[in-house]
Amino acid sequence: MDESGVGSKAQGKMVACKLLLVLTLWTMSTEAFPKGAQRKTCHLSKYKSLPPRELETFKNVKDRFEDIMLLSDRKCNTKIFHRNWKVKELSVHDRVILVETELHLIIDVLENFGDSSLSEQLLRPLEILRDIREDLKSCGNQPQGHQRSRKLTNWLLKFHAAKKMETPGCLEASVIFNLFRFLNEDLKCAAYTDFCT
Amino acid sequence: MDESGVGSKAQGKMVACKLLLVLTLWTMSTEAFPKGAQRKTCHLSKYKSLPPRELETFKNVKDRFEDIMLLSDRKCNTKIFHRNWKVKELSVHDRVILVETELHLIIDVLENFGDSSLSEQLLRPLEILRDIREDLKSCGNQPQGHQRSRKLTNWLLKFHAAKKMETPGCLEASVIFNLFRFLNEDLKCAAYTDFCT
Repeated sequence: MDESGVGSKAQGKMVACKLLLVLTLWTMSTEAFPKGAQRKTCHLSKYKSLPPRELETFKNVKDRFEDIMLLSDRKCNTKIFHRNWKVKELSVHDRVILVETELHLIIDVLENFGDSSLSEQLLRPLEILRDIREDLKSCGNQPQGHQRSRKLTNWLLKFHAAKKMETPGCLEASVIFNLFRFLNEDLKCAAYTDFCT
Repeated sequence: MDESGVGSKAQGKMVACKLLLVLTLWTMSTEAFPKGAQRKTCHLSKYKSLPPRELETFKNVKDRFEDIMLLSDRKCNTKIFHRNWKVKELSVHDRVILVETELHLIIDVLENFGDSSLSEQLLRPLEILRDIREDLKSCGNQPQGHQRSRKLTNWLLKFHAAKKMETPGCLEASVIFNLFRFLNEDLKCAAYTDFCT
């Protein structure tokens, strides 16, 4: 083998090494510095348990509401949040859809609450709920080919129909009575992903 | 001094001693073995704090009620248990009257509850409430000359009027939403007597 043969082989190895290095660096950089909404990571783990002082602000709203709620008409035709299955029975992606859907109504109702005597007590709970909504945005991208389960699809249909049909008084009471199930069961189970038991 | 004089003095002392002994024994016996309802001692101190497992039975009733309550008409014209003063502002005897009055309605409403799906969950809470009623019976004898305060008298008038005017649906919701204030504030304050702060 002549010197030029040995040289071209060595050159070929160097080119391969450089290519490997570039590829490795490119892969690392796209993981470490994600660009755009699609690359944002879904961070729900902080909602595995909310701090007691934050839960207390929701408790205060519920206590105050119980004190005034009976003076208005709150009768409902349906149990709007009701379901006969547990959130853990859903896939991780379906749980996110469920939590997003419930949260959308909860924020909407609390932002437009009829009794102004609750306005101040609602400030912190609404801040927390909007934070959750922001964090959920990065969890909403469903993997290609993901299909919603039949139980979630049916529940969504009933939920959206009831939302349109019920009175504001019913919706307010339903939302407030459902707050702790939302925080302690649905959101928590979405946060625990595969480990929700 | 002759012997007969010394003897009569000694006899006089013995009679006085015997009389003192009889009086002491009589006083002790009436304290230790009270006769009749009037002599029964008022035992509320056990209600300074109810065991958590007992409170849990009331919590279960409230949770279940919240799940079904919106399907019936619960609107009230007044806040039946409402008052703008604290129970600790009442005299010890007025607190007992307040607690007895509230308890009478609570038991009556829970014993005749409209929704039979709550019957089983109401069993233990009703047992506890009837025990409290029994214990209160021996605390109801007011000292001679005791006058109810104006704030209690006014509250009783409004309470009895509201009781007659409101619907069963309103009374059920009012009673259940007031259960924990009754147990954790009113009853507890009556149990703490002079030490309710």
